[in-house]
Amino acid sequence: MNLILLEPSDFIGPHQVRLTDRRWQHIQQVHQAKLGESLRVGLINGLMGLGTVTALDTTGVTLQIALSEPPPTALPLTLVLALPRPKMLKRTLQTIASMGVKRLILVNSYRVEKSFWQSPFLQAAAIREQLLLGLEQARDTVLPEVILEKRFKPFVEDRLPALTADSLALVAHPGAYPACPRQLEQQVTLAIGPEGGWIPYEVELLTQAGFSPVQLGERILRVETAVPVLLARLF
Amino acid sequence: MNLILLEPSDFIGPHQVRLTDRRWQHIQQVHQAKLGESLRVGLINGLMGLGTVTALDTTGVTLQIALSEPPPTALPLTLVLALPRPKMLKRTLQTIASMGVKRLILVNSYRVEKSFWQSPFLQAAAIREQLLLGLEQARDTVLPEVILEKRFKPFVEDRLPALTADSLALVAHPGAYPACPRQLEQQVTLAIGPEGGWIPYEVELLTQAGFSPVQLGERILRVETAVPVLLARLF
Repeated sequence: MNLILLEPSDFIGPHQVRLTDRRWQHIQQVHQAKLGESLRVGLINGLMGLGTVTALDTTGVTLQIALSEPPPTALPLTLVLALPRPKMLKRTLQTIASMGVKRLILVNSYRVEKSFWQSPFLQAAAIREQLLLGLEQARDTVLPEVILEKRFKPFVEDRLPALTADSLALVAHPGAYPACPRQLEQQVTLAIGPEGGWIPYEVELLTQAGFSPVQLGERILRVETAVPVLLARLF
Repeated sequence: MNLILLEPSDFIGPHQVRLTDRRWQHIQQVHQAKLGESLRVGLINGLMGLGTVTALDTTGVTLQIALSEPPPTALPLTLVLALPRPKMLKRTLQTIASMGVKRLILVNSYRVEKSFWQSPFLQAAAIREQLLLGLEQARDTVLPEVILEKRFKPFVEDRLPALTADSLALVAHPGAYPACPRQLEQQVTLAIGPEGGWIPYEVELLTQAGFSPVQLGERILRVETAVPVLLARLF
Protein backbone atom coordinates (compact mmCIF):
# COMPACT_ATOMS: atom_id res chain seq x y z
CA MET A 1 0.00 0.00 0.00
CA ASN A 2 2.00 2.94 -1.33
CA LEU A 3 -1.05 5.21 -1.15
CA ILE A 4 -3.91 5.18 1.35
CA LEU A 5 -7.10 5.56 -0.67
CA LEU A 6 -9.92 7.50 0.93
CA GLU A 7 -13.64 7.22 0.30
CA PRO A 8 -15.99 10.19 0.79
CA SER A 9 -17.58 8.24 3.67
CA ASP A 10 -14.26 8.25 5.58
CA PHE A 11 -14.55 12.02 6.17
CA ILE A 12 -15.65 13.14 9.62
CA GLY A 13 -14.91 16.79 8.84
CA PRO A 14 -14.03 18.84 5.75
CA HIS A 15 -10.35 17.85 6.03
CA GLN A 16 -10.43 14.99 8.48
CA VAL A 17 -10.88 11.24 8.03
CA ARG A 18 -11.26 8.41 10.51
CA LEU A 19 -10.01 4.98 9.40
CA THR A 20 -10.85 1.80 11.31
CA ASP A 21 -10.39 -0.98 8.72
CA ARG A 22 -7.42 -2.64 6.99
CA ARG A 23 -5.99 0.81 6.18
CA TRP A 24 -5.77 1.54 9.90
CA GLN A 25 -4.09 -1.84 10.45
CA HIS A 26 -1.64 -1.05 7.66
CA ILE A 27 -0.86 2.37 9.15
CA GLN A 28 -0.25 0.72 12.55
CA GLN A 29 1.64 -2.38 11.49
CA VAL A 30 3.51 -1.45 8.32
CA HIS A 31 3.97 2.31 8.57
CA GLN A 32 4.10 2.16 12.41
CA ALA A 33 3.04 5.78 12.18
CA LYS A 34 3.19 8.08 15.20
CA LEU A 35 1.22 11.22 16.05
CA GLY A 36 2.19 14.04 13.72
CA GLU A 37 3.56 11.81 10.97
CA SER A 38 2.38 12.30 7.40
CA LEU A 39 1.34 9.54 5.01
CA ARG A 40 0.52 9.62 1.31
CA VAL A 41 -3.22 9.61 0.74
CA GLY A 42 -5.56 10.03 -2.20
CA LEU A 43 -9.30 10.50 -2.61
CA ILE A 44 -10.80 7.81 -4.84
CA ASN A 45 -11.30 9.41 -8.27
CA GLY A 46 -9.80 12.62 -6.86
CA LEU A 47 -6.58 14.35 -5.84
CA MET A 48 -3.63 12.95 -3.88
CA GLY A 49 -1.73 14.52 -1.01
CA LEU A 50 -0.78 13.99 2.62
CA GLY A 51 -2.64 12.77 5.68
CA THR A 52 -1.18 13.77 9.05
CA VAL A 53 -1.92 11.55 12.05
CA THR A 54 -3.86 13.62 14.59
CA ALA A 55 -5.24 10.80 16.77
CA LEU A 56 -4.28 7.16 17.13
CA ASP A 57 -5.99 4.80 19.56
CA THR A 58 -7.06 1.19 19.89
CA THR A 59 -10.01 1.57 17.52
CA GLY A 60 -8.62 3.58 14.62
CA VAL A 61 -6.64 6.52 13.32
CA THR A 62 -7.64 10.10 12.50
CA LEU A 63 -5.84 11.95 9.74
CA GLN A 64 -5.81 15.62 8.79
CA ILE A 65 -6.00 15.63 4.99
CA ALA A 66 -4.39 18.04 2.49
CA LEU A 67 -4.98 17.11 -1.16
CA SER A 68 -3.29 19.01 -3.99
CA GLU A 69 -1.63 16.67 -6.54
CA PRO A 70 -3.41 15.23 -9.56
CA PRO A 71 -3.17 11.44 -10.01
CA PRO A 72 -0.69 10.12 -12.61
CA THR A 73 -1.56 10.23 -16.30
CA ALA A 74 -3.81 7.42 -17.53
CA LEU A 75 -2.98 5.21 -20.49
CA PRO A 76 -4.93 6.24 -23.63
CA LEU A 77 -6.27 2.71 -23.89
CA THR A 78 -9.40 0.62 -23.91
CA LEU A 79 -8.43 -2.97 -23.14
CA VAL A 80 -10.70 -5.73 -24.46
CA LEU A 81 -9.72 -8.92 -22.67
CA ALA A 82 -11.18 -12.41 -23.02
CA LEU A 83 -12.29 -13.30 -19.50
CA PRO A 84 -9.34 -15.02 -17.75
CA ARG A 85 -9.83 -17.79 -15.21
CA PRO A 86 -10.67 -16.42 -11.74
CA LYS A 87 -7.20 -16.56 -10.18
CA MET A 88 -5.64 -14.88 -13.18
CA LEU A 89 -8.48 -12.36 -13.34
CA LYS A 90 -7.68 -11.15 -9.82
CA ARG A 91 -4.03 -10.55 -10.62
CA THR A 92 -4.83 -9.02 -14.00
CA LEU A 93 -7.26 -6.53 -12.45
CA GLN A 94 -4.51 -5.41 -10.08
CA THR A 95 -2.01 -5.18 -12.94
CA ILE A 96 -4.19 -3.12 -15.26
CA ALA A 97 -5.15 -0.76 -12.42
CA SER A 98 -1.51 -0.32 -11.44
CA MET A 99 -0.45 0.37 -15.04
CA GLY A 100 -3.07 3.08 -15.64
CA VAL A 101 -5.70 1.34 -17.78
CA LYS A 102 -9.00 3.17 -17.25
CA ARG A 103 -11.39 1.08 -19.33
CA LEU A 104 -11.40 -2.71 -19.34
CA ILE A 105 -13.97 -4.78 -21.22
CA LEU A 106 -14.06 -8.44 -20.21
CA VAL A 107 -15.54 -10.41 -23.12
CA ASN A 108 -16.53 -13.95 -23.79
CA SER A 109 -14.60 -16.00 -26.34
CA TYR A 110 -14.87 -19.56 -27.64
CA ARG A 111 -12.00 -20.68 -25.38
CA VAL A 112 -13.34 -19.02 -22.21
CA GLU A 113 -14.79 -21.69 -19.94
CA LYS A 114 -18.45 -20.97 -19.24
CA SER A 115 -17.90 -21.48 -15.51
CA PHE A 116 -15.59 -18.45 -15.39
CA TRP A 117 -18.65 -16.21 -15.79
CA GLN A 118 -20.05 -17.61 -12.54
CA SER A 119 -16.97 -16.64 -10.51
CA PRO A 120 -17.63 -14.60 -7.36
CA PHE A 121 -14.57 -12.56 -8.41
CA LEU A 122 -16.75 -11.00 -11.12
CA GLN A 123 -19.07 -9.36 -8.62
CA ALA A 124 -18.75 -5.60 -8.62
CA ALA A 125 -17.42 -5.44 -5.05
CA ALA A 126 -14.80 -8.12 -5.77
CA ILE A 127 -13.63 -6.36 -8.94
CA ARG A 128 -13.43 -3.05 -7.08
CA GLU A 129 -11.34 -4.65 -4.32
CA GLN A 130 -8.70 -5.85 -6.80
CA LEU A 131 -8.68 -2.53 -8.66
CA LEU A 132 -8.13 -0.66 -5.38
CA LEU A 133 -5.15 -2.91 -4.59
CA GLY A 134 -3.65 -1.96 -7.97
CA LEU A 135 -4.26 1.76 -7.42
CA GLU A 136 -2.79 1.62 -3.88
CA GLN A 137 0.28 -0.12 -5.30
CA ALA A 138 0.86 2.34 -8.15
CA ARG A 139 -0.23 5.53 -6.33
CA ASP A 140 -3.22 6.35 -8.46
CA THR A 141 -6.76 7.30 -7.42
CA VAL A 142 -8.83 6.85 -10.58
CA LEU A 143 -10.83 3.61 -10.61
CA PRO A 144 -10.93 1.88 -14.00
CA GLU A 145 -14.34 1.21 -15.52
CA VAL A 146 -14.88 -2.53 -16.00
CA ILE A 147 -17.55 -3.71 -18.46
CA LEU A 148 -18.68 -7.34 -18.76
CA GLU A 149 -19.74 -8.59 -22.21
CA LYS A 150 -20.95 -12.16 -22.07
CA ARG A 151 -21.75 -12.47 -25.79
CA PHE A 152 -18.87 -11.96 -28.19
CA LYS A 153 -20.65 -11.49 -31.52
CA PRO A 154 -23.24 -8.83 -30.62
CA PHE A 155 -20.60 -7.00 -28.61
CA VAL A 156 -18.09 -6.90 -31.48
CA GLU A 157 -20.67 -6.15 -34.16
CA ASP A 158 -22.94 -3.73 -32.35
CA ARG A 159 -21.08 -2.00 -29.56
CA LEU A 160 -17.34 -2.24 -30.26
CA PRO A 161 -17.33 0.11 -33.31
CA ALA A 162 -18.58 3.03 -31.19
CA LEU A 163 -16.01 2.23 -28.47
CA THR A 164 -13.09 2.08 -30.92
CA ALA A 165 -13.98 5.23 -32.86
CA ASP A 166 -10.94 7.52 -33.25
CA SER A 167 -8.60 4.89 -31.83
CA LEU A 168 -6.04 2.53 -33.32
CA ALA A 169 -7.67 -0.90 -32.87
CA LEU A 170 -5.27 -3.83 -32.46
CA VAL A 171 -5.85 -7.50 -31.76
CA ALA A 172 -2.92 -9.45 -30.33
CA HIS A 173 -2.69 -12.80 -32.10
CA PRO A 174 0.21 -15.09 -32.99
CA GLY A 175 0.84 -15.55 -36.69
CA ALA A 176 2.29 -13.89 -39.77
CA TYR A 177 1.17 -10.41 -38.72
CA PRO A 178 3.09 -7.16 -38.22
CA ALA A 179 4.95 -6.84 -34.92
CA CYS A 180 3.05 -4.99 -32.20
CA PRO A 181 3.91 -1.28 -32.60
CA ARG A 182 5.85 0.63 -29.94
CA GLN A 183 5.63 3.91 -28.09
CA LEU A 184 2.32 5.15 -29.44
CA GLU A 185 0.86 8.45 -28.35
CA GLN A 186 -2.61 8.02 -29.80
CA GLN A 187 -5.75 6.41 -28.37
CA VAL A 188 -5.60 2.61 -28.68
CA THR A 189 -8.11 -0.20 -28.35
CA LEU A 190 -6.29 -3.50 -27.72
CA ALA A 191 -7.95 -6.93 -27.77
CA ILE A 192 -6.17 -9.81 -25.99
CA GLY A 193 -7.46 -13.38 -26.27
CA PRO A 194 -7.82 -16.16 -23.70
CA GLU A 195 -5.32 -18.92 -22.86
CA GLY A 196 -5.16 -20.85 -26.13
CA GLY A 197 -5.88 -17.69 -28.12
CA TRP A 198 -8.76 -16.34 -30.19
CA ILE A 199 -10.26 -18.75 -32.70
CA PRO A 200 -9.96 -17.69 -36.39
CA TYR A 201 -13.64 -16.69 -36.51
CA GLU A 202 -13.12 -14.27 -33.64
CA VAL A 203 -10.05 -12.71 -35.28
CA GLU A 204 -12.13 -12.37 -38.46
CA LEU A 205 -14.99 -10.62 -36.65
CA LEU A 206 -12.55 -8.29 -34.90
CA THR A 207 -10.86 -7.56 -38.24
CA GLN A 208 -14.23 -6.72 -39.79
CA ALA A 209 -14.80 -4.38 -36.84
CA GLY A 210 -11.61 -2.53 -37.79
CA PHE A 211 -8.99 -4.31 -35.69
CA SER A 212 -5.54 -5.05 -37.12
CA PRO A 213 -3.83 -8.24 -35.92
CA VAL A 214 -0.36 -7.77 -34.42
CA GLN A 215 2.01 -10.32 -32.93
CA LEU A 216 4.60 -10.43 -30.19
CA GLY A 217 7.06 -12.97 -31.58
CA GLU A 218 7.28 -16.73 -31.34
CA ARG A 219 7.07 -17.03 -27.55
CA ILE A 220 3.60 -17.79 -26.19
CA LEU A 221 3.04 -15.79 -23.01
CA ARG A 222 0.45 -16.35 -20.32
CA VAL A 223 -2.26 -13.71 -20.27
CA GLU A 224 -0.96 -12.26 -17.01
CA THR A 225 2.44 -11.73 -18.68
CA ALA A 226 1.11 -10.73 -22.11
CA VAL A 227 -0.93 -7.86 -20.63
CA PRO A 228 1.98 -5.94 -19.02
CA VAL A 229 4.25 -6.79 -21.97
CA LEU A 230 1.80 -5.41 -24.54
CA LEU A 231 1.05 -2.27 -22.51
CA ALA A 232 4.76 -1.59 -21.89
CA ARG A 233 5.46 -1.96 -25.56
CA LEU A 234 2.54 0.15 -26.83
CA PHE A 235 3.13 3.14 -24.52
CA MET B 1 2.00 -26.81 -21.72
CA ASN B 2 2.56 -25.58 -25.27
CA LEU B 3 5.69 -27.70 -25.59
CA ILE B 4 6.46 -31.09 -24.07
CA LEU B 5 10.01 -30.88 -22.73
CA LEU B 6 12.09 -34.04 -22.91
CA GLU B 7 15.02 -35.07 -20.71
CA PRO B 8 17.79 -37.34 -22.00
CA SER B 9 16.59 -39.96 -19.50
CA ASP B 10 13.18 -40.13 -21.24
CA PHE B 11 14.76 -41.78 -24.30
CA ILE B 12 14.27 -45.54 -24.66
CA GLY B 13 15.75 -45.55 -28.18
CA PRO B 14 17.63 -43.08 -30.39
CA HIS B 15 14.35 -41.42 -31.48
CA GLN B 16 11.87 -42.76 -28.99
CA VAL B 17 10.76 -41.54 -25.56
CA ARG B 18 8.49 -43.03 -22.94
CA LEU B 19 6.64 -40.60 -20.67
CA THR B 20 4.85 -41.72 -17.51
CA ASP B 21 4.62 -38.54 -15.39
CA ARG B 22 2.62 -35.30 -15.54
CA ARG B 23 3.54 -34.93 -19.21
CA TRP B 24 1.76 -38.21 -19.92
CA GLN B 25 -1.26 -37.02 -17.95
CA HIS B 26 -1.23 -33.76 -19.89
CA ILE B 27 -1.07 -35.63 -23.22
CA GLN B 28 -4.01 -37.79 -22.13
CA GLN B 29 -6.21 -35.21 -20.46
CA VAL B 30 -5.52 -31.93 -22.24
CA HIS B 31 -4.32 -32.98 -25.69
CA GLN B 32 -6.48 -36.15 -25.61
CA ALA B 33 -3.97 -37.42 -28.15
CA LYS B 34 -4.63 -40.57 -30.20
CA LEU B 35 -2.24 -43.00 -31.83
CA GLY B 36 -0.49 -41.37 -34.77
CA GLU B 37 -1.06 -37.81 -33.59
CA SER B 38 1.88 -35.42 -33.39
CA LEU B 39 2.66 -33.09 -30.51
CA ARG B 40 5.22 -30.31 -30.16
CA VAL B 41 8.24 -31.49 -28.21
CA GLY B 42 11.66 -30.12 -27.34
CA LEU B 43 14.80 -31.55 -25.78
CA ILE B 44 15.87 -29.58 -22.73
CA ASN B 45 18.74 -27.33 -23.85
CA GLY B 46 18.34 -28.73 -27.36
CA LEU B 47 16.23 -28.66 -30.52
CA MET B 48 12.44 -28.63 -30.86
CA GLY B 49 10.25 -30.67 -33.18
CA LEU B 50 7.44 -33.21 -33.20
CA GLY B 51 6.65 -36.30 -31.17
CA THR B 52 4.26 -38.80 -32.77
CA VAL B 53 2.25 -41.07 -30.49
CA THR B 54 3.27 -44.69 -31.24
CA ALA B 55 1.92 -46.36 -28.10
CA LEU B 56 -0.59 -45.26 -25.48
CA ASP B 57 -1.68 -47.44 -22.58
CA THR B 58 -2.67 -47.22 -18.94
CA THR B 59 0.90 -46.61 -17.74
CA GLY B 60 2.27 -44.06 -20.19
CA VAL B 61 2.82 -42.88 -23.73
CA THR B 62 5.56 -43.60 -26.27
CA LEU B 63 6.52 -40.96 -28.79
CA GLN B 64 8.62 -41.14 -31.94
CA ILE B 65 10.74 -37.99 -31.88
CA ALA B 66 11.94 -35.81 -34.77
CA LEU B 67 13.86 -32.71 -33.69
CA SER B 68 14.94 -30.07 -36.19
CA GLU B 69 14.02 -26.52 -35.10
CA PRO B 70 16.24 -24.33 -32.95
CA PRO B 71 14.63 -22.80 -29.85
CA PRO B 72 13.59 -19.12 -30.04
CA THR B 73 16.18 -16.40 -29.68
CA ALA B 74 17.21 -15.58 -26.12
CA LEU B 75 17.17 -12.07 -24.69
CA PRO B 76 20.67 -10.53 -24.56
CA LEU B 77 20.23 -9.94 -20.85
CA THR B 78 21.58 -10.73 -17.43
CA LEU B 79 18.89 -9.96 -14.87
CA VAL B 80 20.02 -9.08 -11.34
CA LEU B 81 16.96 -9.29 -9.13
CA ALA B 82 16.65 -8.68 -5.40
CA LEU B 83 15.24 -11.93 -4.04
CA PRO B 84 11.41 -11.63 -4.11
CA ARG B 85 9.22 -13.27 -1.49
CA PRO B 86 8.63 -16.96 -2.19
CA LYS B 87 5.22 -16.72 -3.89
CA MET B 88 6.40 -13.93 -6.15
CA LEU B 89 9.66 -15.76 -6.81
CA LYS B 90 7.77 -18.73 -8.25
CA ARG B 91 5.80 -16.59 -10.67
CA THR B 92 8.82 -14.50 -11.55
CA LEU B 93 10.90 -17.58 -12.40
CA GLN B 94 8.15 -18.69 -14.78
CA THR B 95 7.92 -15.21 -16.29
CA ILE B 96 11.62 -14.77 -16.92
CA ALA B 97 11.90 -18.26 -18.42
CA SER B 98 8.93 -17.62 -20.70
CA MET B 99 10.33 -14.27 -21.85
CA GLY B 100 13.76 -15.66 -22.80
CA VAL B 101 16.02 -14.52 -19.94
CA LYS B 102 18.96 -16.94 -19.78
CA ARG B 103 20.85 -15.64 -16.75
CA LEU B 104 19.20 -14.59 -13.52
CA ILE B 105 21.12 -13.55 -10.43
CA LEU B 106 19.05 -13.43 -7.25
CA VAL B 107 20.77 -11.06 -4.82
CA ASN B 108 20.27 -9.96 -1.29
CA SER B 109 19.29 -6.37 -0.57
CA TYR B 110 18.59 -4.40 2.60
CA ARG B 111 14.83 -4.74 2.07
CA VAL B 112 14.88 -8.49 1.37
CA GLU B 113 13.56 -10.33 4.42
CA LYS B 114 16.18 -12.75 5.73
CA SER B 115 13.62 -15.54 5.91
CA PHE B 116 13.21 -15.46 2.10
CA TRP B 117 16.64 -17.10 1.80
CA GLN B 118 15.33 -20.10 3.75
CA SER B 119 12.47 -20.74 1.31
CA PRO B 120 12.21 -24.29 -0.07
CA PHE B 121 11.44 -22.62 -3.42
CA LEU B 122 15.13 -21.68 -3.61
CA GLN B 123 16.25 -25.29 -3.79
CA ALA B 124 17.69 -26.19 -7.17
CA ALA B 125 14.93 -28.68 -7.99
CA ALA B 126 12.20 -26.18 -7.08
CA ILE B 127 13.78 -23.44 -9.19
CA ARG B 128 14.13 -25.85 -12.10
CA GLU B 129 10.46 -26.84 -11.84
CA GLN B 130 9.29 -23.22 -12.20
CA LEU B 131 11.72 -22.54 -15.05
CA LEU B 132 10.45 -25.62 -16.91
CA LEU B 133 6.87 -24.34 -16.55
CA GLY B 134 7.95 -21.07 -18.16
CA LEU B 135 9.76 -22.83 -21.01
CA GLU B 136 6.78 -25.15 -21.65
CA GLN B 137 4.50 -22.11 -21.78
CA ALA B 138 6.66 -20.10 -24.19
CA ARG B 139 7.93 -23.03 -26.33
CA ASP B 140 11.58 -22.75 -25.47
CA THR B 141 14.05 -25.45 -24.41
CA VAL B 142 17.00 -23.56 -22.96
CA LEU B 143 17.03 -23.53 -19.16
CA PRO B 144 18.11 -20.21 -17.65
CA GLU B 145 21.08 -20.24 -15.31
CA VAL B 146 20.08 -19.04 -11.82
CA ILE B 147 22.77 -17.79 -9.45
CA LEU B 148 22.16 -17.02 -5.77
CA GLU B 149 24.17 -14.21 -4.18
CA LYS B 150 23.40 -13.87 -0.49
CA ARG B 151 25.78 -10.99 0.16
CA PHE B 152 25.17 -7.81 -1.79
CA LYS B 153 28.39 -5.88 -1.28
CA PRO B 154 31.00 -8.52 -2.18
CA PHE B 155 28.85 -9.57 -5.12
CA VAL B 156 28.56 -6.04 -6.51
CA GLU B 157 32.16 -5.09 -5.81
CA ASP B 158 33.97 -8.30 -6.66
CA ARG B 159 31.91 -10.34 -9.12
CA LEU B 160 29.46 -8.03 -10.87
CA PRO B 161 32.08 -6.08 -12.89
CA ALA B 162 33.17 -9.23 -14.73
CA LEU B 163 29.52 -10.19 -15.38
CA THR B 164 28.63 -6.79 -16.79
CA ALA B 165 31.68 -6.40 -19.00
CA ASP B 166 30.66 -5.35 -22.55
CA SER B 167 27.06 -4.80 -21.53
CA LEU B 168 24.91 -1.76 -20.86
CA ALA B 169 24.35 -1.91 -17.10
CA LEU B 170 21.09 -0.37 -15.85
CA VAL B 171 19.52 -0.22 -12.41
CA ALA B 172 15.78 0.40 -12.27
CA HIS B 173 15.06 2.94 -9.54
CA PRO B 174 12.39 5.60 -9.12
CA GLY B 175 13.65 9.16 -9.07
CA ALA B 176 14.96 11.98 -11.25
CA TYR B 177 16.75 9.63 -13.64
CA PRO B 178 16.52 9.17 -17.42
CA ALA B 179 13.58 7.07 -18.63
CA CYS B 180 14.36 3.42 -19.21
CA PRO B 181 15.60 3.10 -22.83
CA ARG B 182 13.65 1.17 -25.46
CA GLN B 183 14.29 -1.43 -28.12
CA LEU B 184 17.96 -2.07 -27.45
CA GLU B 185 19.91 -4.57 -29.49
CA GLN B 186 23.01 -4.73 -27.33
CA GLN B 187 23.83 -6.90 -24.30
CA VAL B 188 22.20 -5.51 -21.15
CA THR B 189 22.60 -6.15 -17.42
CA LEU B 190 19.50 -4.97 -15.57
CA ALA B 191 19.21 -4.71 -11.78
CA ILE B 192 15.71 -4.64 -10.25
CA GLY B 193 15.23 -3.99 -6.53
CA PRO B 194 12.91 -5.56 -3.98
CA GLU B 195 9.44 -4.41 -2.93
CA GLY B 196 10.16 -1.02 -1.39
CA GLY B 197 13.13 -0.53 -3.70
CA TRP B 198 16.89 -0.41 -3.34
CA ILE B 199 18.24 1.73 -0.52
CA PRO B 200 20.40 4.71 -1.59
CA TYR B 201 23.60 2.90 -0.51
CA GLU B 202 22.80 0.02 -2.86
CA VAL B 203 22.12 2.35 -5.79
CA GLU B 204 25.42 4.06 -5.01
CA LEU B 205 27.35 0.77 -4.99
CA LEU B 206 25.70 -0.29 -8.25
CA THR B 207 26.52 3.10 -9.77
CA GLN B 208 30.15 2.69 -8.73
CA ALA B 209 30.07 -0.71 -10.43
CA GLY B 210 29.07 1.00 -13.67
CA PHE B 211 25.26 0.86 -13.51
CA SER B 212 23.17 3.82 -14.70
CA PRO B 213 19.89 4.43 -12.86
CA VAL B 214 16.79 4.55 -15.07
CA GLN B 215 13.15 5.04 -14.12
CA LEU B 216 9.77 3.90 -15.36
CA GLY B 217 7.58 6.87 -14.46
CA GLU B 218 5.62 7.79 -11.39
CA ARG B 219 3.67 4.56 -11.00
CA ILE B 220 5.16 2.08 -8.53
CA LEU B 221 4.80 -1.44 -9.92
CA ARG B 222 5.03 -4.73 -8.09
CA VAL B 223 8.16 -6.71 -8.93
CA GLU B 224 6.15 -9.31 -10.83
CA THR B 225 4.77 -6.52 -13.07
CA ALA B 226 7.96 -4.49 -13.24
CA VAL B 227 9.95 -7.43 -14.61
CA PRO B 228 7.85 -8.05 -17.76
CA VAL B 229 7.35 -4.29 -18.24
CA LEU B 230 11.09 -3.57 -18.15
CA LEU B 231 11.97 -6.50 -20.42
CA ALA B 232 9.24 -5.59 -22.95
CA ARG B 233 10.49 -2.04 -23.01
CA LEU B 234 14.21 -2.82 -23.28
CA PHE B 235 13.93 -5.34 -26.15
